[in-house]
Amino acid sequence: MKIIKNISEVKKICSDKKIALIPTMGAIHKGHESLIHKAQEKASFNIVSIFVNPIQFANNDEYINYPNNINSDIEKLKNLKVDAIFIPEIREIYPLGFSTNVDVGQISKVLEGKFRPAHFTGVATIITKLFSIIKPDHAYFGQKDAQQCLVIKKLNDELNLGVKIFINPTVRDQNGIAISSRNKNLNKIHLKAAESLFKSLCLSKQLFEKGIDNTKYIKDEMKKVIMQSYPTKIDYISIANSNTLEELDKIALPTLISLAVWFGETRLIDNILLK
Amino acid sequence: MKIIKNISEVKKICSDKKIALIPTMGAIHKGHESLIHKAQEKASFNIVSIFVNPIQFANNDEYINYPNNINSDIEKLKNLKVDAIFIPEIREIYPLGFSTNVDVGQISKVLEGKFRPAHFTGVATIITKLFSIIKPDHAYFGQKDAQQCLVIKKLNDELNLGVKIFINPTVRDQNGIAISSRNKNLNKIHLKAAESLFKSLCLSKQLFEKGIDNTKYIKDEMKKVIMQSYPTKIDYISIANSNTLEELDKIALPTLISLAVWFGETRLIDNILLK
Repeated sequence: MKIIKNISEVKKICSDKKIALIPTMGAIHKGHESLIHKAQEKASFNIVSIFVNPIQFANNDEYINYPNNINSDIEKLKNLKVDAIFIPEIREIYPLGFSTNVDVGQISKVLEGKFRPAHFTGVATIITKLFSIIKPDHAYFGQKDAQQCLVIKKLNDELNLGVKIFINPTVRDQNGIAISSRNKNLNKIHLKAAESLFKSLCLSKQLFEKGIDNTKYIKDEMKKVIMQSYPTKIDYISIANSNTLEELDKIALPTLISLAVWFGETRLIDNILLK
Repeated sequence: MKIIKNISEVKKICSDKKIALIPTMGAIHKGHESLIHKAQEKASFNIVSIFVNPIQFANNDEYINYPNNINSDIEKLKNLKVDAIFIPEIREIYPLGFSTNVDVGQISKVLEGKFRPAHFTGVATIITKLFSIIKPDHAYFGQKDAQQCLVIKKLNDELNLGVKIFINPTVRDQNGIAISSRNKNLNKIHLKAAESLFKSLCLSKQLFEKGIDNTKYIKDEMKKVIMQSYPTKIDYISIANSNTLEELDKIALPTLISLAVWFGETRLIDNILLK
């Protein structure tokens, strides 16, 4: 497995190959593993990027506290038979004076974008850069970050980057909790409480399948499931068109049901897609 | 000469060649011709794009009144032995719902960016798209649009687009007027008066070469040259660092001296570079 730190080197290595890219911020987990397995089915050369992207964090604290264990990541990726990893330093990606950004507009301003204003501009900028540097044929993302997937598909289409985007289903633990690097920050009580997120999402699906399409009613029922399990702060429960992210009064397919909920200092997101 | 209207077609034609791109908004003139000649020295396949980019205009009027004569352009480009032209329709470039934009930050907010707030976001977005679609090896721009050149170099560097950017000197008529599509809109009086722009720029250079570096004094002398020739509205006379566009109290090389001046309904820009 090649470990590459420089843009010029990664460009050279990727220049004559059909590339599958799995962009990550490290803290490799089962969600990433499923992306890697999928990529390995398709492409001749798979490359995982590890870059904790400072400009997509709400503040420096959140950035500094993001889980980070590069040696363990390298070991895992070796075992997964990844062909190469790209681990640039911050200044390699954002030289002094860097000020360009990519913004995809309205779909990045709602939900996560409302609570984390610069987040998706940061995501769109780093992904545009990684796609330009590595020129992958395919790139792989997880449905857990549903809005991020929409943002990336939109910038890829609208800036004509020409990458085939694959979205993998959310990987969950045996209790239904969506795998996320942030789960490491949960204590036992919060970990138990966080099971309510997927339960509430499953309930919303069951209600819809029973013929209930009133989103206010469904959201209230979801909220009950979460708050009865653990009284906490819910940033949002959203039932929206899964392409435009416009909130719906009545469910009309395709619909994205998504939420963001705090457990202690940790904010978790999750979603399901009704198609 | 191939005339290409679709993104998919231009991608196919450009995919296996070393490409020189000359992006234009049509109204092909001697400035463009010099770019084409330069491109033809370098690359095996030269392509001129013609796209009057709506999102870089201040308003609809300015967009609609932009000079436009596609048949004459095609004839000229044929005679210049251009290999291909790319003339997409608006909806090919900006499909319904398009909302992504590229912004390079501070250097796009001053000078032209101050007077035309969305202009450089429009420029940066279309150039990112053209570079992604055509994947040129080289691209050619004119020094007349000095700030545009800086914006394009910055987005190309910072989004890692990997295109070699060539800036050609400003082409002038026998009276020193910088060749521009907008010159067509000038009447005889304005055309005569517009000669003062280059005269004032030459004066600034002469003053500097005489040892005068006080930019306020130099700007005042330049203003006199323009206003004595024709009393009009000057949007700005700027003496700035040619990389950062920060205004200078005293000239320190490299310096960009630039201006924007109205003649009737037509706004002209011009500049010189002191290196």
